[in-house]
Amino acid sequence: MCDPSQKHVLLVFAHQDGKSFNGALKDTAIDTLRSLGHSVDVSDLYSQQFEPRATKNDIRGPLQDPNLFNYSEEGRHAYRHNCQSLDIANETDKLKRADLIIFQFPLYWSSVPAILKGWFDRVLCDSFAFDFESQNVLDQGFMKGKRTVLSLTTGCTRDMLSPTGLSSDINVLLWPIQYGTLRMCGFDVLSPQISYGTKLVEEPTRQQYIKDWKCRLQNIFSEEPLSFPKLSDFDH
Amino acid sequence: MCDPSQKHVLLVFAHQDGKSFNGALKDTAIDTLRSLGHSVDVSDLYSQQFEPRATKNDIRGPLQDPNLFNYSEEGRHAYRHNCQSLDIANETDKLKRADLIIFQFPLYWSSVPAILKGWFDRVLCDSFAFDFESQNVLDQGFMKGKRTVLSLTTGCTRDMLSPTGLSSDINVLLWPIQYGTLRMCGFDVLSPQISYGTKLVEEPTRQQYIKDWKCRLQNIFSEEPLSFPKLSDFDH
Ligand SMILES: Cc1cc2nc3c(=O)[nH]c(=O)nc-3n(C[C@H](O)[C@H](O)[C@H](O)COP(=O)(O)OP(=O)(O)OC[C@H]3O[C@@H](n4cnc5c(N)ncnc54)[C@H](O)[C@@H]3O)c2cc1C
Ligand SMILES: Cc1cc2nc3c(=O)[nH]c(=O)nc-3n(C[C@H](O)[C@H](O)[C@H](O)COP(=O)(O)OP(=O)(O)OC[C@H]3O[C@@H](n4cnc5c(N)ncnc54)[C@H](O)[C@@H]3O)c2cc1C
Ligand SMILES: [Zn+2]
Ligand SMILES: [Zn+2]
Repeated sequence: MCDPSQKHVLLVFAHQDGKSFNGALKDTAIDTLRSLGHSVDVSDLYSQQFEPRATKNDIRGPLQDPNLFNYSEEGRHAYRHNCQSLDIANETDKLKRADLIIFQFPLYWSSVPAILKGWFDRVLCDSFAFDFESQNVLDQGFMKGKRTVLSLTTGCTRDMLSPTGLSSDINVLLWPIQYGTLRMCGFDVLSPQISYGTKLVEEPTRQQYIKDWKCRLQNIFSEEPLSFPKLSDFDH
Repeated sequence: MCDPSQKHVLLVFAHQDGKSFNGALKDTAIDTLRSLGHSVDVSDLYSQQFEPRATKNDIRGPLQDPNLFNYSEEGRHAYRHNCQSLDIANETDKLKRADLIIFQFPLYWSSVPAILKGWFDRVLCDSFAFDFESQNVLDQGFMKGKRTVLSLTTGCTRDMLSPTGLSSDINVLLWPIQYGTLRMCGFDVLSPQISYGTKLVEEPTRQQYIKDWKCRLQNIFSEEPLSFPKLSDFDH
C-alpha cells in the first residue's frame, strides 16, 4: 500500500467456466500480476451470479419517484445517499481501489456478454463514474487515472474481424465499449488484447496467446493508452 | 392468417416501467399495428423477469461436454434436440412466426440494456438464427425475410450523437447490433427510429416523436431496408 510500484488490479471475468480458454487467460493475469507484487481482486461474474438487470432492487429504501421509474436518476440518488444495493456497492468498492481494470470475456454478438453489459449498466453509474451535468466525462470523467484493458477471445479469425472481413473491423465493434462507455467515464483505455479464433487456431497459437498476454502484463503500467478526443474538443 | 397483408409483429420491450416514454412508444406501436389488422406479440422483458445470463440452466438434460462448458456448442445442440430451456423456446416460437420484430429500448452505454443483450445472446442461437459452418449468415442467415427495427430513446441530443458530437455517430454505435447481430442472422434491418434527448426536449417534440413513429408504422412493411454487404462479397 506504500510502495507506489505496487498496484491494485481488478479483474472482471465473464465466462461460465474457469477451465475455458478465457479461464486460462484469467489465471495467467492473476499469477503474473501477483508475482510482480501487485494485488488482484477478481469479480467472477457468473460464479457470483451477478445480476445484469437494472431494476428497482438496485435501490434500497424509498424511490425518488414512485410513479415513474427512471433508472439513471434513481441510481444517481442512491449512489449519493449510500443506498445502492450491496452487490453494486461491493463492485464499486473494488473499482475505487483499482489502478487497472481488466475485462476478460468471450465476444458475444460483436460485444460483451449480457452479464458484463449489466456490470457496465449498474456499476458505472451517474455521479460515481461520470456526470454529464457537471461535464465530468471523457478526460474529465471520474475514472480518470485508472487504466483499463479489454482482453477478449473470439470465434472469428483475425481476417474476419479486419476492416475487409465478414464480421467487420473489431475496432469499430469495440468503439461503443472503449469510447462510448470506458473513455466516457475517464478511463485510460489500453489497446485490446485479442485472442482470435480460439477454437479454430492450432494449439501452439493458443499457447502463444497465453505467452503474449503474460509478456504484455509485465509492463502494462507503463504502456501508452489509446488516444481519444478531449472534452474541450466539443462545443456545449 | 390467410390475408397476406395481415402480418405478425413481435415487440421486444426493454424498459422497467410501462408509464415511461419508452412505454408510450410501445403502446403507440401496439395500437397502430393492431388497428391496421396486424397481430402483435409482446415480450416485456423486465416484467417477464427475462434472464439475460447465458448459463447451463439454458440446457435441459445432460450437457454434451460436462467438463468444459461451451455455450455456443451446448446451445446449438439444445436447439437441434429440443432441449432448450422453456423461456428461450417461448421467445423462439414468437420470433418464428413474426414478420417484423421491433426492439423498443433506452440507449444504455451506447448500446442495448443488458436485459436485451441477453435476449440476443440466448435467443439468436447457432442453428436457429444462423450457422457459420454452413455459411448461413448475412443474406443467407436463417432470419431471412423477417424485418426488424430498433426504436430507441436517448439521453443525449441529436447533435451529441452526430459524427462530430461528443457521444459520436449513433450509426457507428448501432453497427455491432444492426450489422454484427441482426444482419448477421439475415434480418432485413430498417433504419432506426430514434427519439433523441427524450428528457431534454420540450413536450411538443416528445409528442412529435410519438406522431412520427405512428406515421412511420403505417407503411413499415413496404419500406426499403438498409443495405449491407452480401455473403458473396467475402472470400472464404
Ligand atoms: C451468444 C454468443 C455469441 C457469439 N458471438 C460472437 C461474435 O459476434 N463474434 C465472434 O467472433 N465470436 C462469437 N462467439 C464465439 C465466442 O466468442 C467463442 O466461443 C469464445 O471466444 C471462445 O472462448 P472460450 O474461452 O469459451 O473457449 P473454449 O471453448 O474454452 O476454448 C477454445 C479452445 O481452446 C482450448 N483450450 C481451453 N483451455 C485451454 C488452455 N488452458 N490452453 C490451451 N488451450 C485451451 C479448448 O480445448 C478449445 O479448443 C459467440 C458465442 C456465443 C455463445
Ligand atoms: C445505465 C444507463 C446508461 C445510459 N447510457 C446512455 C448513453 O450511452 N447515451 C445516451 O444518450 N443516453 C444514455 N442513457 C440515458 C437513457 O437513454 C435515457 O434515460 C432514456 O432514453 C430515457 O427514456 P425513458 O423512457 O426512460 O424516459 P422517461 O424518463 O420515461 O421520459 C422522458 C421524458 O418524457 C416524459 N414522458 C413520459 N411519458 C410520456 C408520454 N407518454 N408522452 C410525453 N412525454 C412523456 C417524462 O416526463 C420525461 O420528461 C443511459 C441511462 C442509463 C440508466
Ligand atoms: Zn494501496
Ligand atoms: Zn398467419
